[in-house]
Amino acid sequence: MITKASRMEHTLTADAHWRERAARVIPGGMYGHMNASRDKLPSSYPQYYVKGKGARLWDVDGNEYIDYLCAYGPMILGYVHPEVEKVAAKQQANGDGLSGPTPLMVELAETLTEKVAHADWSIFAKNGTDATSIAVMTARAATGRKKLLKARRAYHGASVWFTPQAGGITPQDRENIIEFEFNDQASLELAALKAGDDLAAVILPPFRHDSYADQEEVLPAFARAARALTTRMGAVLILDEVRSCLRLDIRGAWTSIGVFPDLTAFSKSLANGFPLAAITGTEALREAAKSIFVTGSFWYHGVPMAAALETLRIIEAVDGPSVMRTSGELLRTGLNEQAESYGFSLRQTGPASMPMIAFDDDPQMERIYSFSDAAVRQGVLFHPWHNMFISLAHTQEEIDKTLVATEKAFEELSRNINK
Amino acid sequence: MITKASRMEHTLTADAHWRERAARVIPGGMYGHMNASRDKLPSSYPQYYVKGKGARLWDVDGNEYIDYLCAYGPMILGYVHPEVEKVAAKQQANGDGLSGPTPLMVELAETLTEKVAHADWSIFAKNGTDATSIAVMTARAATGRKKLLKARRAYHGASVWFTPQAGGITPQDRENIIEFEFNDQASLELAALKAGDDLAAVILPPFRHDSYADQEEVLPAFARAARALTTRMGAVLILDEVRSCLRLDIRGAWTSIGVFPDLTAFSKSLANGFPLAAITGTEALREAAKSIFVTGSFWYHGVPMAAALETLRIIEAVDGPSVMRTSGELLRTGLNEQAESYGFSLRQTGPASMPMIAFDDDPQMERIYSFSDAAVRQGVLFHPWHNMFISLAHTQEEIDKTLVATEKAFEELSRNINK
Repeated sequence: MITKASRMEHTLTADAHWRERAARVIPGGMYGHMNASRDKLPSSYPQYYVKGKGARLWDVDGNEYIDYLCAYGPMILGYVHPEVEKVAAKQQANGDGLSGPTPLMVELAETLTEKVAHADWSIFAKNGTDATSIAVMTARAATGRKKLLKARRAYHGASVWFTPQAGGITPQDRENIIEFEFNDQASLELAALKAGDDLAAVILPPFRHDSYADQEEVLPAFARAARALTTRMGAVLILDEVRSCLRLDIRGAWTSIGVFPDLTAFSKSLANGFPLAAITGTEALREAAKSIFVTGSFWYHGVPMAAALETLRIIEAVDGPSVMRTSGELLRTGLNEQAESYGFSLRQTGPASMPMIAFDDDPQMERIYSFSDAAVRQGVLFHPWHNMFISLAHTQEEIDKTLVATEKAFEELSRNINK
Repeated sequence: MITKASRMEHTLTADAHWRERAARVIPGGMYGHMNASRDKLPSSYPQYYVKGKGARLWDVDGNEYIDYLCAYGPMILGYVHPEVEKVAAKQQANGDGLSGPTPLMVELAETLTEKVAHADWSIFAKNGTDATSIAVMTARAATGRKKLLKARRAYHGASVWFTPQAGGITPQDRENIIEFEFNDQASLELAALKAGDDLAAVILPPFRHDSYADQEEVLPAFARAARALTTRMGAVLILDEVRSCLRLDIRGAWTSIGVFPDLTAFSKSLANGFPLAAITGTEALREAAKSIFVTGSFWYHGVPMAAALETLRIIEAVDGPSVMRTSGELLRTGLNEQAESYGFSLRQTGPASMPMIAFDDDPQMERIYSFSDAAVRQGVLFHPWHNMFISLAHTQEEIDKTLVATEKAFEELSRNINK
């Protein structure tokens, strides 16, 4: 329970202490997507957490939050989910990493092959970036070609190919990448023309989920065009489901529109937070996948595979994607109603289970920052410029409590504007 | 206990079953360094394991082994080490991956900064490959240069820069890499000449531990020359301790010879098998490390950091590197004596705690394969072409039992040769 007392006492004293210590021993104090420095997130956001349970998080100062970041995706059933933790603990007692895999790896590969529409095989790794890298290597090995087409601003991992900052990157790292605009068929065709007979692959997210931008569902005609183009040119279509993994459709995000990739990269929520990534592929690419050498010390670990099997079982049993969509719609509708009642107009974009909130007439993002800041102080963790995540732990009760908090956040925003 | 009965009954029936199932859903049946296919390891080696405890492993058929692979390095205190498991379980109960790091990350960065001689900061990741990649990116960001010098045949991860097979690699991926011979100062100088004023970094393992080759300790004069050369040319010296992590010297593998790198990549045994990698660096490289964008969904997880703190504590408390060296020397001496008594001559190379065994006059490696094959059937997991690992669980008792098994393996080898 978020008590009124705890909300009124929102402080980040211990957080400040840890940030100060971190500044000495971690470059910039923190790095990557979990960097909550003041130039990235409002000052009410904590950097350090100590506990999660269900949809709730506790920061190092004891503040409690309903969390819509879900560890930036991995949490899909709820933090410390009893059934997943139980199978994980059982495997952990027998060892996680041994001198070879456990049979769980085969069972998980069989399960993905069965559930994911296009999949005839799987390879497991740790990071989402491992999965997109292996997909690209497999495509290049299969085609003997080099060029990779990606949507401008799309994030496909922190490899030298894709990482969004220029630091540490050489021109050669990007020499074989050609960009196009997401959902723009002509732009994609032009990029393919540039690649010519050296086109190895097109990599796409299932929908546009760039940072600092509205999300955009894929146009079915665009997805079909990407499929037709890669087939026609003997290239490979890679779907990057690292972020959307299991949230939209267990069979693959584009199954409902009848578009099947050759390779899919999965990670994040595959094992409800246990570290795991997977690449699934078609029969035609099996030999190519066999011909590349990819590995990692921890890729064969049994615990995340046990957790993934249980996560898949639960999500399928309750039709997780549909439940999360309904919860997301509940939140979306509630926020829209509140915004309207205070005279604000929201743009809520992307799938309801991976929501993104923006304010109309807010080009400098001041309003979304103020709103997020107020929401955090009311015990709700939103994100002002990155898509958020709904989990199965975001029950109607949690959404209702969230809306009580956001009502106050809108009220505060309105009061400050009219002051 | 390995009973005589269990040794005599060594079968791999269930293993064969799982290999058959895997062949359908995993390209080539298995991939990477844990691929135990028959063209890589003798037919007595299992592919699938179900349990580890201390220095022991159990395969899917119930065969028990004294394991000298140690999960290829990560296991350093023993499988399922009670003290490490205890702190890990405590953190796991509060959540592993949350929407930000726990304070354990700061504590671990502080600890590494304190223990590792050259370190002023740390960045954490998951794979050893993440650590070497981040080191290279940091060096390039710091120098504004591109060229990377590496020892021929040295393995620094499965990135496109370093992976040993050509599948999926473009010429551009390797365009900025220049190779030299390990321990050959003239060769290193020549490579640096080729790089000229575009030299960003030299990456070196602490000793030569290439597959299918004798290991080779670094010549102190060579290490000093690499240090002098990089300093003189304004380039960065990267030490790749992914594999040697904590086994040779907690302060850094070259501390005893007085050579300090600018960056070190750690992984494998850092958290006794919990998935974690770390990069440590000097003050001069802090801003460069801050300027690159690197991240991963699971890099901020609390459980491996809790495990790493406990692993470091235990290794330091018992002077782990010295204990493992002594155990390794016990094994080395015992094997040499047995080999001699059967008329064989061994080459045992590298640090005693990371041993490599080869037979003289065995250019086709038939003898080492036969010996490893016999040892596995006697309940001892060695490796015929990859370095092995001694852990703190390899007590005198375990080494004694190992030598009982290897006595029989030598005897069998001798009998088969003289037949």
